[in-house]
Amino acid sequence: MKGLWLENNQLQLRTDIPIPEPLQGEVLVRVLRAGICNTDLELIRGYYPYTGILGHEFVGVVEQGPEHLINQRVVGEINAACGYCRFCRRGQPTHCENRTVLGIVNRHGAFAEYLCLPIQNLHPVPEHVPTDVATFTEPLAAALEIQQQVALSADDRVLVVGDGKLGQLVAQTLAVTGCELLVVGRHREKLANLAARDIKTGLAEAVTDGYFDISVECTGNPEGFAIARRALRPRGTLVLKSTYAGHLSLDASSLVVDEITLIGSRCGPFPAALELLATEKVDVKPLIHASYPLNEGLAAFELAQSRGVLKVLLEIGQ
Amino acid sequence: MKGLWLENNQLQLRTDIPIPEPLQGEVLVRVLRAGICNTDLELIRGYYPYTGILGHEFVGVVEQGPEHLINQRVVGEINAACGYCRFCRRGQPTHCENRTVLGIVNRHGAFAEYLCLPIQNLHPVPEHVPTDVATFTEPLAAALEIQQQVALSADDRVLVVGDGKLGQLVAQTLAVTGCELLVVGRHREKLANLAARDIKTGLAEAVTDGYFDISVECTGNPEGFAIARRALRPRGTLVLKSTYAGHLSLDASSLVVDEITLIGSRCGPFPAALELLATEKVDVKPLIHASYPLNEGLAAFELAQSRGVLKVLLEIGQ
Repeated sequence: MKGLWLENNQLQLRTDIPIPEPLQGEVLVRVLRAGICNTDLELIRGYYPYTGILGHEFVGVVEQGPEHLINQRVVGEINAACGYCRFCRRGQPTHCENRTVLGIVNRHGAFAEYLCLPIQNLHPVPEHVPTDVATFTEPLAAALEIQQQVALSADDRVLVVGDGKLGQLVAQTLAVTGCELLVVGRHREKLANLAARDIKTGLAEAVTDGYFDISVECTGNPEGFAIARRALRPRGTLVLKSTYAGHLSLDASSLVVDEITLIGSRCGPFPAALELLATEKVDVKPLIHASYPLNEGLAAFELAQSRGVLKVLLEIGQ
Repeated sequence: MKGLWLENNQLQLRTDIPIPEPLQGEVLVRVLRAGICNTDLELIRGYYPYTGILGHEFVGVVEQGPEHLINQRVVGEINAACGYCRFCRRGQPTHCENRTVLGIVNRHGAFAEYLCLPIQNLHPVPEHVPTDVATFTEPLAAALEIQQQVALSADDRVLVVGDGKLGQLVAQTLAVTGCELLVVGRHREKLANLAARDIKTGLAEAVTDGYFDISVECTGNPEGFAIARRALRPRGTLVLKSTYAGHLSLDASSLVVDEITLIGSRCGPFPAALELLATEKVDVKPLIHASYPLNEGLAAFELAQSRGVLKVLLEIGQ
């Protein structure tokens, strides 16, 4: 089959990859559509060693598996858990000690004609949700993880730093809570997407230091972190939603004096994300910058790495 | 009056300081005993600019103030709050935007014959609690702040990194919760204090990485932070209890992947601390390394800065 293969920080389009065979408890999924995420770009830059098929945001159709799933359109959680380690036993499969992660850790990913995942990772896509839209389920779930970790109320003043793919989804999920929300970024046209949904936006200079109860860092760079930190009142919470290349230097004493909470945030709940897409409380369509067939996957990556580009999709199957 | 005065990073014993005059709502306290804290040592090193009388851990007797407090032995909360800012209004006076802090920010401290504090900052010391013991109320309250911030249960595996003054108090307050506790440090004789109270102790090498639900960093140095971080399981909580000179460099991506919570922790509840001292659930006496009269205050600081020394007290009045 065809697929985008990463090896030694080089991405290549291969046509000689064997179709994978599902293990016990797994299903074979024919991929319809997949999305390029910043993590994919970081993997290419060597942020984490990985060799194999890239990609973890997808919609597909079940080809082999339990009868009730055959021909079903599905999305899939990316962490394949062992089911018996201490994290699995305490209901935290995304932190399974023995996990493989689709297109990230020891499991071939979604930028290919077929993939395999455990049955319990799959979620049927509601019929009226378009395939392009459902491709956003995984990053939208990750955005919703914030609300699993931090209790939010309509009284809260929340700042999102970053207007990229992740910042856009985080902002839309936070807006649903009714909190007092401000999103700051560097790209007027990206901020305009959010302003069109009545979300307050601005450039970084618009942030009043010490004003916010919660800030969410969605840039992955130290400047974004500094803005998110300064924006917080004492006893505020800074959510780290982006991964960082290299180390972050911070003033730990000020965290102590101001009793700041810093919390890392990763994968989130798929059912809640599908619900937001199905009820159209979140609109991901303006985030789609372009779609490319898998054959032109390398060009798709070229575009995805360009400044100012939001989501680039790969059209893999029908 | 006599007092230890800090100016331009130089501590001096002065005898010409005027006795302070309490403002409206304040009381005049004659100081009996005071304790030297690491924050005092850091202020001398220039960690934060401060000029005036140093010292914030004390026991004293009220000399001027409301009748019911006159001649009462008291301890005092160190943050003098304005009462009307947004933090005071939400019941967080320790984060008051306009606060002065005894011996730390814009308010003369306790290493002198007299000090002033607002009436509401004072807590009477129960009669049977010795003055030396009550001097530990402030740092013990700071140790208890952890339990105000993190819900602890007997099931939790908790690591304390650091066997100094703060680590010793933090360990004893955590032991009261019945959690599974390990304290690691570099000083066998300090760890022995805790082992004598049936608290499990070890050297840093004794820490099983990824084992702990909660770790408390009480060393204020990057090596201590690294141990506390490595010790945590995914979704664990790292409490920063010490201030750091300079910046701390950390692997922010690993905080995201493991969804770690980092929380800064400062001043805590005095009534709960006095209760622990009154019921002798915490024993601070083994922490007293030496006592010096105020006249020998500079020698006391000399000793307090030596490696391996725990609490040094100043005997100021009778």
